[in-house]
Amino acid sequence: MTSPVGLHRVVEPAGVLPQAAWRVDNRPEIGPNEVRIRVERLNLDAASYRQLREKHAGDGEAVRAEVLGIVEQRGKMHNPVTGSGGMLIGVVEAVGARSPLGLTPGDRVATLVSLTLTPLRITDGLKGWDGGSEQVPAEGHAILFARSIVAKLPDDLPAELALAVLDVCGAPALTSRVVQAGDTVAVLGGAGKSGSLALAAARRAGARRAVGIVPTTNEAARLEKGGLADAVAIADARDPVALAEAVTRALGKPADVTVVCVDVPGCEHGAILATDDGGTVIFFSMATSFAAAALGAEGLAADVTMLVGNGYVPGHAEFALDLLRTEPAVRNLFEQRLRAD
Amino acid sequence: MTSPVGLHRVVEPAGVLPQAAWRVDNRPEIGPNEVRIRVERLNLDAASYRQLREKHAGDGEAVRAEVLGIVEQRGKMHNPVTGSGGMLIGVVEAVGARSPLGLTPGDRVATLVSLTLTPLRITDGLKGWDGGSEQVPAEGHAILFARSIVAKLPDDLPAELALAVLDVCGAPALTSRVVQAGDTVAVLGGAGKSGSLALAAARRAGARRAVGIVPTTNEAARLEKGGLADAVAIADARDPVALAEAVTRALGKPADVTVVCVDVPGCEHGAILATDDGGTVIFFSMATSFAAAALGAEGLAADVTMLVGNGYVPGHAEFALDLLRTEPAVRNLFEQRLRAD
Repeated sequence: MTSPVGLHRVVEPAGVLPQAAWRVDNRPEIGPNEVRIRVERLNLDAASYRQLREKHAGDGEAVRAEVLGIVEQRGKMHNPVTGSGGMLIGVVEAVGARSPLGLTPGDRVATLVSLTLTPLRITDGLKGWDGGSEQVPAEGHAILFARSIVAKLPDDLPAELALAVLDVCGAPALTSRVVQAGDTVAVLGGAGKSGSLALAAARRAGARRAVGIVPTTNEAARLEKGGLADAVAIADARDPVALAEAVTRALGKPADVTVVCVDVPGCEHGAILATDDGGTVIFFSMATSFAAAALGAEGLAADVTMLVGNGYVPGHAEFALDLLRTEPAVRNLFEQRLRAD
Repeated sequence: MTSPVGLHRVVEPAGVLPQAAWRVDNRPEIGPNEVRIRVERLNLDAASYRQLREKHAGDGEAVRAEVLGIVEQRGKMHNPVTGSGGMLIGVVEAVGARSPLGLTPGDRVATLVSLTLTPLRITDGLKGWDGGSEQVPAEGHAILFARSIVAKLPDDLPAELALAVLDVCGAPALTSRVVQAGDTVAVLGGAGKSGSLALAAARRAGARRAVGIVPTTNEAARLEKGGLADAVAIADARDPVALAEAVTRALGKPADVTVVCVDVPGCEHGAILATDDGGTVIFFSMATSFAAAALGAEGLAADVTMLVGNGYVPGHAEFALDLLRTEPAVRNLFEQRLRAD
């Protein structure tokens, strides 16, 4: 039997899980508990795409060539600098007789496990992509394991929209689990995709007051318009003192729960300083540095609980799609982001 | 007034906290809320020392030169590769009129904030150190801020022993907070300093069964002898499958709480796979990769809570020293480690 977590696909180094592997085996033949997807579109992780774009100074051709090179070399879209990947949508092409995922050939699905562990082969040279967006039309195939997580795409939403929601669906689910009724909440990057969902989830969990922190007046206007947050403040999340002041001013005190949804490095100290003693910081950004968080809290004598944002929480896909369907402000923000991409 | 978190000591880049700074101002003149310490000994963080030793293939002279160079360049002992530091002991030399730390010149103290944010100048060229140990005799001075954390050294314990305990005192305190009565607990690196304290803390918190995971038969014998763990198992924490099997065999199921006290990279996936659904992983190792943890849990569809090990928990120093005083097995392990260093 092939391994439920894909150990049999690891090429090098031996003995690690697919996510830790430098290279995985992306051949199309599937084992009895695997599923093969015909790929339609990749959605690159925001931190990964930003790194590639900045490295190549916005040269889309060079970004495309590097993505192709990574997949060719590693058998998966696993950015070696950021360590992050993204997700994909496609159509189920073949299902092993013993796959537990409940899929049928022809199902249109989104993978909810990271591209960093998903065997992937690209066959069209990404000719439909100009390198200028996180959304990458692509032809090729991908492989799911028995323990992969996958969502059938809903009929009532455009695929791009559903994909963008599913990509960040861990954030609202974990926020909802952590926020208690009566808490004050700060969401850094509140006008973004994971940020707007986290704000909606915090409100649904009974937050007493929630502030969305954004970097620009443009984003502030967008977030204010929807009314998702009780307050909106502009601050650079990388400036700890300015951030803590903005949060404290908006909430009357530091936050009980701070949710970091900003995909730039260097937000750890600000998030800690903006959080009340006994409070919790949830780090969702892949740009988070473990050492900066651990040592930052110690250096500030901050008694805060710090959570690594786990992308998997049972029921996360349904919860996030429900927020999108029922909160027009969330849907508006997503649609604006997609148009801007 | 000078900043309670030391912002006035940041040289570059401007606007960040001292821990995030590339360089801090280490001049000896103190502000009204600062304290100057005459340094006696540094205790390098295990991940930092290991990186330096491996980089220089055990050449102590080269390790010493690099530590001196880092402090000269950065004004603090902040390893630029691992991002970690360590701590120090010394004697209080000068206390600003408005310092809230309650210190008096002549007090012998250990700093409980990381060296990564502590202004430090070394004046003896580390001539008393051969580069062959984490414990570094040193002359010079260090600066504490108003919000620094510092412990007076206890009279009943040798300074080296107290320092080694205080260096890792966040681990038992947070373990004690997370473990609930009746939990099963796995401690990776159970025979180490933070690991043995975590095992003792888990037991005191009412763990039903605790397993210590160690890499070698030597370490297994040491840990078994003291009886700190209900079971001891040998496994490479970087091998997820082997680790999960060892933990599951020892506990009868995956752990409710897994504590990572191993200072090598690549233990994230094993820790996640060894933890039961609904359980918690506490990452204390500075070698932890945020992305590997976040994406690993997602990739394994693991519903686990993952905590960044915060080095500060109120009362952590007293709690750890109390464990050392009252658990002979912990004290034995520490004394063996110090002799081996």
